[in-house]
Amino acid sequence: MSYLSKKAQEIVPYIAGEQPKIKDIVKLNTNENPYPPSDMVKKAIAELDKDVLKLYPNPEAKKVKQAAAKLHGVSEENIFVGNGSDEVLAVAFLALFDGPLRFADVTYSFYPVWASLYDIETDVIPLKEDYTIDVEKFMGARNAIFPNPNAPTGIALSLEDVKRIVKSAKGAVVVDEAYADFGAKSAIALIDECPNLLVVRTLSKSHSLAGLRLGYAVGNKELIDGLIRIKDSFNSYPVDAIAEAAGSAALLDAQYEQDCVKKVIATRERTVNELEKLGFSILPSAANFIFAKPPVNAKELFLSLRERGIIVRYFEKPRTKDYLRITIGTDSQMDRLIAAVKELI
Amino acid sequence: MSYLSKKAQEIVPYIAGEQPKIKDIVKLNTNENPYPPSDMVKKAIAELDKDVLKLYPNPEAKKVKQAAAKLHGVSEENIFVGNGSDEVLAVAFLALFDGPLRFADVTYSFYPVWASLYDIETDVIPLKEDYTIDVEKFMGARNAIFPNPNAPTGIALSLEDVKRIVKSAKGAVVVDEAYADFGAKSAIALIDECPNLLVVRTLSKSHSLAGLRLGYAVGNKELIDGLIRIKDSFNSYPVDAIAEAAGSAALLDAQYEQDCVKKVIATRERTVNELEKLGFSILPSAANFIFAKPPVNAKELFLSLRERGIIVRYFEKPRTKDYLRITIGTDSQMDRLIAAVKELI
Repeated sequence: MSYLSKKAQEIVPYIAGEQPKIKDIVKLNTNENPYPPSDMVKKAIAELDKDVLKLYPNPEAKKVKQAAAKLHGVSEENIFVGNGSDEVLAVAFLALFDGPLRFADVTYSFYPVWASLYDIETDVIPLKEDYTIDVEKFMGARNAIFPNPNAPTGIALSLEDVKRIVKSAKGAVVVDEAYADFGAKSAIALIDECPNLLVVRTLSKSHSLAGLRLGYAVGNKELIDGLIRIKDSFNSYPVDAIAEAAGSAALLDAQYEQDCVKKVIATRERTVNELEKLGFSILPSAANFIFAKPPVNAKELFLSLRERGIIVRYFEKPRTKDYLRITIGTDSQMDRLIAAVKELI
Repeated sequence: MSYLSKKAQEIVPYIAGEQPKIKDIVKLNTNENPYPPSDMVKKAIAELDKDVLKLYPNPEAKKVKQAAAKLHGVSEENIFVGNGSDEVLAVAFLALFDGPLRFADVTYSFYPVWASLYDIETDVIPLKEDYTIDVEKFMGARNAIFPNPNAPTGIALSLEDVKRIVKSAKGAVVVDEAYADFGAKSAIALIDECPNLLVVRTLSKSHSLAGLRLGYAVGNKELIDGLIRIKDSFNSYPVDAIAEAAGSAALLDAQYEQDCVKKVIATRERTVNELEKLGFSILPSAANFIFAKPPVNAKELFLSLRERGIIVRYFEKPRTKDYLRITIGTDSQMDRLIAAVKELI
């Protein structure tokens, strides 16, 4: 007999990209930023009086809340902060979705796991032939969630299409903007006219802070208060005092973030050109990764690159099995990738 | 109409002790350690290469896992690490309890909230007249949870009684040892003979790291694997890279932790003596707080102390309304408390 709950026995967990500890690898598999965090982050960590760690932190990560409100020109009551955008999304699933929840067949693969964790009925909408979100079929949903740009395709929806989906929904819609800074228009502009819209952001990508676990949601006060109620029924203090100080510093150093984003976009465009010359077919990316169909067997290329210490992501499912998801690293990392690909195809 | 789920509309969240930002208060309300974290913690934070924050952290907080395994003489496969023991407990509720779940009427008030969050049936067992856990009535439970020592009473169960409850249960039993270092025998000694026992610990109390959000569970591999499955269905990386480095340093500096614990215990005994002289009736505490019945109206004393900048905790429920829960601070903080009490009664 098992001492586990039925849920723990039956659930199929999300599988994150691996974090190999091999030296000198080119790690292009989990969409991290290749540039280090802002010097302001390092300064905030160094200057924090470590004796405050004996006390509980602010339960709502107030400094991050203030910085995010300032950055987006909204009120603090419109911001909810959590331990990474995955935690924010998990809380949002429980706070906002009674189902059926509409999401795409090819999308962030954590969505079906959270739905399963919280017994939320799902309504899966296939992407169109060209791997874009089928906006018409998202219309009129009870609840819906999609990343913008979508992952792993990298394709962005226009703000007009986002608005149509949100306005037509009967309940709450979550737009997951983990990668939006790399090329999509943010739906935060819509929160005043769309009381059912929650926009989720992360500091893991454009702010180079995946290791610090910070994400936040932006939306109208009713939604934010609902997230707080669920948070306070789960873990009162999800953001530690160091993360609070460092995260607010990162958000306030917008110039550094934009400089990193520009470099990543330039490298992305160059990488796309080089790989297209080699016969790859690449979906139009508005993210810090590309979804690329090689002119050879994708799985074999994935494995051969891995042998050479170049780690990309491969999803062995019917609609994704011919593609590789490649994070955009530094120029020199992408040069190593391109050189290896040239040898292998 | 509401855009919130039924759950978010109906749940009654846990209310944590306040974190007032008033200067010069004597904060004796949330059972924090009055001593700062170990110098080894500060060193680990200073020495961590902050550039690693651009990468995701280890998903299982490996360094903390290793340090905890070493500290308790168990294998790494017996340890689960989370973002504070509240998160560990929340994960354990979902991973282990299908209900009915037995817990005391006077206990950590987060337990009924998690049960409500996850729709777990509850079976509440009143403490005995003397505020001790009614061991006989805990026998033969499907699932059970209790803090040892219990909160807010501070009273510890013997290891023999813990063992009787665990061995008689049909399913998993969680022993919440947040305060055990201040005077209870740890049930970690029982995990080999009790495959249904999960012991939960925190770095917030005896390790002076409430601000860093670190807790862990110790138990047999099946239970730990179940917790990992739920964690991986909720948030892949709950512990950030700085917390991982700092937390492992804290666990490895056992001497410093024991020195702080000894000082807190000495101050507790002195405080109990002084307050008893003033007519308080105090439950026997094995924790870093005392549950004390003043010779005057408890609520009025709570409010009068608050006016003087001395914050203790008051629970306005039938069985707790005549008591104050007072965290043990430094000797000088307790002197201020005692002086104020002398004035007020």
